[in-house]
Parts: sequence; structure tokens; C-alpha cells
Amino acid sequence: MMLINGQSDDSVSVLDRGLSYGDGLFETIRFEQGRAPLWARHMQRLAWGCERLRLPAPDTALLWQEARQVTGAQALCVLRITMTRGLGQRGYALPVPVSPTRIVAAFPMPAVCGTLYTHGMRLHRCRTTLADQPLLAGIKHLNRLEQVLARAEWSDPDIGEGLVCDSHGNVISTTAANLFAVIDGMPVTPAVDRCGVAGVARAAMLDAFPNCQVRDLSLDEAMRASELFLSSSVRGILPVQAVGDTVYAPGPVARAMQQHWRELGFAVECA
Amino acid sequence: MMLINGQSDDSVSVLDRGLSYGDGLFETIRFEQGRAPLWARHMQRLAWGCERLRLPAPDTALLWQEARQVTGAQALCVLRITMTRGLGQRGYALPVPVSPTRIVAAFPMPAVCGTLYTHGMRLHRCRTTLADQPLLAGIKHLNRLEQVLARAEWSDPDIGEGLVCDSHGNVISTTAANLFAVIDGMPVTPAVDRCGVAGVARAAMLDAFPNCQVRDLSLDEAMRASELFLSSSVRGILPVQAVGDTVYAPGPVARAMQQHWRELGFAVECA
Repeated sequence: MMLINGQSDDSVSVLDRGLSYGDGLFETIRFEQGRAPLWARHMQRLAWGCERLRLPAPDTALLWQEARQVTGAQALCVLRITMTRGLGQRGYALPVPVSPTRIVAAFPMPAVCGTLYTHGMRLHRCRTTLADQPLLAGIKHLNRLEQVLARAEWSDPDIGEGLVCDSHGNVISTTAANLFAVIDGMPVTPAVDRCGVAGVARAAMLDAFPNCQVRDLSLDEAMRASELFLSSSVRGILPVQAVGDTVYAPGPVARAMQQHWRELGFAVECA
Repeated sequence: MMLINGQSDDSVSVLDRGLSYGDGLFETIRFEQGRAPLWARHMQRLAWGCERLRLPAPDTALLWQEARQVTGAQALCVLRITMTRGLGQRGYALPVPVSPTRIVAAFPMPAVCGTLYTHGMRLHRCRTTLADQPLLAGIKHLNRLEQVLARAEWSDPDIGEGLVCDSHGNVISTTAANLFAVIDGMPVTPAVDRCGVAGVARAAMLDAFPNCQVRDLSLDEAMRASELFLSSSVRGILPVQAVGDTVYAPGPVARAMQQHWRELGFAVECA
């Protein structure tokens, strides 16, 4: 089920700037039994992204009401909230006044096999690199062709994600999740101030594990890490089993963050 | 009037990847009295862009038929062709099989005052810079947030365009047109292999003026150029009158390219 500007609908105008220019942003939010433990963080990131893209701030109470309406009685689902700059004439100039398009839609939870949480996920090492764009870095915006091209690099169903670097040889994330590495016993997650998305699950882990460093992380360092794991607000904490031929074992830091994920209120581990 | 996959319609599914990820590309084509002098070049770029984005090649005969249908008897209009990767489930993986969405829509020609062609246009110098992404450079894709942010830097209606650089201090283009400079008597246009769009009017001018250099052009060089002018497949050849406080006079190279533009078959100079 989905709502567009509060109305039950499933299509948007061809003139919507979300379609014309990818002019907008989105959130994907895990719902369990009508609850979204990371809701406040999602709303915080959405407001921050809107401010950076010069979009009007969303009404979070209204979004919550619409989220409840579309997720209904589903035990487990993913909510996608999309905010675009709404209708515009042809051309890049911002429409005045602006009337954003608000799309609130529920989707089935992607199937994540339980063994991925225990034994880890296999990763492809992507050749596609992320461009440095500090003006857009961190924002979960609608310009996602880099991720589409990176994800198109493999079709092996046993590979769940692709490791993506920037153009300087630093790892940034995977195609659809944030990355953590354990280096000399300490957790590290790549900075996302030049590219990448400031993940909500990543933010929750950074708050709970203040010893975690946020910094540039070279691919070489990541490949030598004692642990490698992913954070996703939809899928939680996923150990990495292998990147190409390099094998990792799930370790104590990933286990501790998985434990914290459950303590946040996520009960259903395997969908 | 507009056609979506050949049907008269004005909306697309919320699940269209054009909206979800900006996963697609477009062309804007000037039509005069049912004729589009640069049609073949637009089709060439569209096919090239589709290949790079791994989209099925469009049927250009069908596109022409639909273009004629939506432009009808209009004396002067702009046709926008948008191709997206069509419907997809949530997630970046390419849908298999893919069924692209084809949008063909006619818009009124933007008002371009005749004095702009004779006396030139005023430009804002944008602070927004374009990120290097060789995988997407040149393609007129739907990920246009950089252009939206650059265009949002000014609201003065007397300023028609913004000059945009890359992160290394080279000028690349304006927000919605390609750029030419005359340096030591020779025309130069910036390379668009790391960012920017490979404009169709630019390609037509490069073919007609083989002495024109394609290379990196520093902002300093551009600011000292004896002529500065823009090329746009919708608006033609537009001299630059000023970038901020730096003033330029329309010169012989811009005039020669304007003459070539008319010889290509564009008769109506002022809309």
C-alpha cells in the first residue's frame, strides 16, 4: 500500500522533479509489529537532508501517521518515504513556491537468510568508484546511478553486496549498506563527508560504541581487518564472510553490535 | 501533450526506477515547424548513453513517430525524451527482464530574448562544483542534483546561466549548456570525460569547426578569454556578456557559430 501526499495512489506526474532530475531524497525504515525503533533517527536524517537540498522540512507527525497507515498489521516490512521537490517546469531552477511530493509506501522485507547473520555474507569488490561530492555526501538522495552501476557488476545470487571505494582507494561502503572494519582490535567506519550515505544504523552503532573511529579507511587496511561487517537500517548487522577470495570470520565486535541491534528493539532476525 | 510507452498519459508508477534512483537518461530537442535538424545526433547520443547505462537501445523510428505526434503543428517547441529502466522492486539490482519506460513530451520553447543573441547573456559564477565520475561523464542522465544546487545559487532574473567548474578549478559548462572560449584566437571547449554533458549542439559545432580544441580549460584561462559563449541544442549559440563583474564582447567566433546554427536549419532565432 502507498500514499502520495496523503492520498492512496500509485503514480506521480511525469513533471515531478523526482523523476526529471532525481531531485529529492528517501528513507528506508524497518517496521516490526507496527514499531520502528530507529524512527527518530530516520526523521533526523530526513530533516537534515531536506535542509541541505533546500527542501521544506517534512511534518514528522504526519509521516508517522501515514507510515502506520501503510504498514498496518504487517509483522515485518520496509517503509520507504520519498520526498521530491514536486512539480516543476522544464529547467533546473527551483520552483517557487515549492510543493514537495511525499510518497509513503510499504514493501515486503527482503529475504535475509539466518545463516548470513551467523556465518556472514559474501561480497563482490566493485570496480565502480564513488565520486567526491561534499555537497551531497551523506544524504540519501535520489541520484543513485553510481549504486545502480556498482550493483550491476555481479549477478551471482550467493553474493549479497558489493564493496565500493572512492576514487582515492578508500573503502566507503557497500552498494546498499555501511561498512565497519576492526583494525588492531578497534572498530572503524569510513567517513562519509565526501561520498557515501550517513546510515541510520551506522549512527546508532556510533552512539553505542563511542570507541569506534570515523576516518578514511584504505582498501588495503580493510582487506587486512580482523573483522568486516555491514550495518543497514533494514537488515541490521551483517558479518562479511568474504570479499572476493579474501575470507573473514565473524568476530566479537560484530557480535556485540548484533546484540545492540536486538537491544534497540529489533526482535525478528531472519526474514 | 505527452506519451508514455506510446499511450497518452501524464503519470508514471511510483515504482519506476527513474523516480526511485534517477535510473535513466533524457534528451531535449528543439523542434521548428515539425523539423528537428539535430535529430540524428540526439538519437546517437541517446543510444550511446543507453549502452553505457546498460539500457536496451531505443527504437528511433518509433521515437520519431511519437515525437511528431506530440509536437504536432507547433511552430516552435522543445521535445523531451526520457528513458528510464522502468519498474523495479526495491533495491539497486537491475530488473530482469527490463522493460524501460519511454516518455515523449512536448514543452513550450523557453523565452530567449533576441538581445541575448546579439549582446550576450550574464552568467553567475557557481560555487557548486561538479564531481569527477568518468562512468557517467558525458551522459545526459537523470542524476541532476548538482545542476539543481548550482542553479539554486542565484535568483536574479537578469542572470541567465551559471558557470560551473569541476573540483580542480577547470570550467566545464554552465548549468544547462556547454561552453566555448576563444583563447589566443582559437576556440576551445572543455573536455567532458570526467564530468559534464556531451552536448549535441557542441558536437555539431566541433564537426563544423575542426580547429576547435577539446581540452581542460582552467577558470583563469576562461576568465581571460577574448570570447566566451554557450551552445545549447534548445537555445543555440549564446554569447556571454559577463561572468560576475568580468565583461566580454560577442566576437567573430561566436558569430560564425551562430551562422552555422542557422545553416543547420534553425530559422527562428527569438522565441
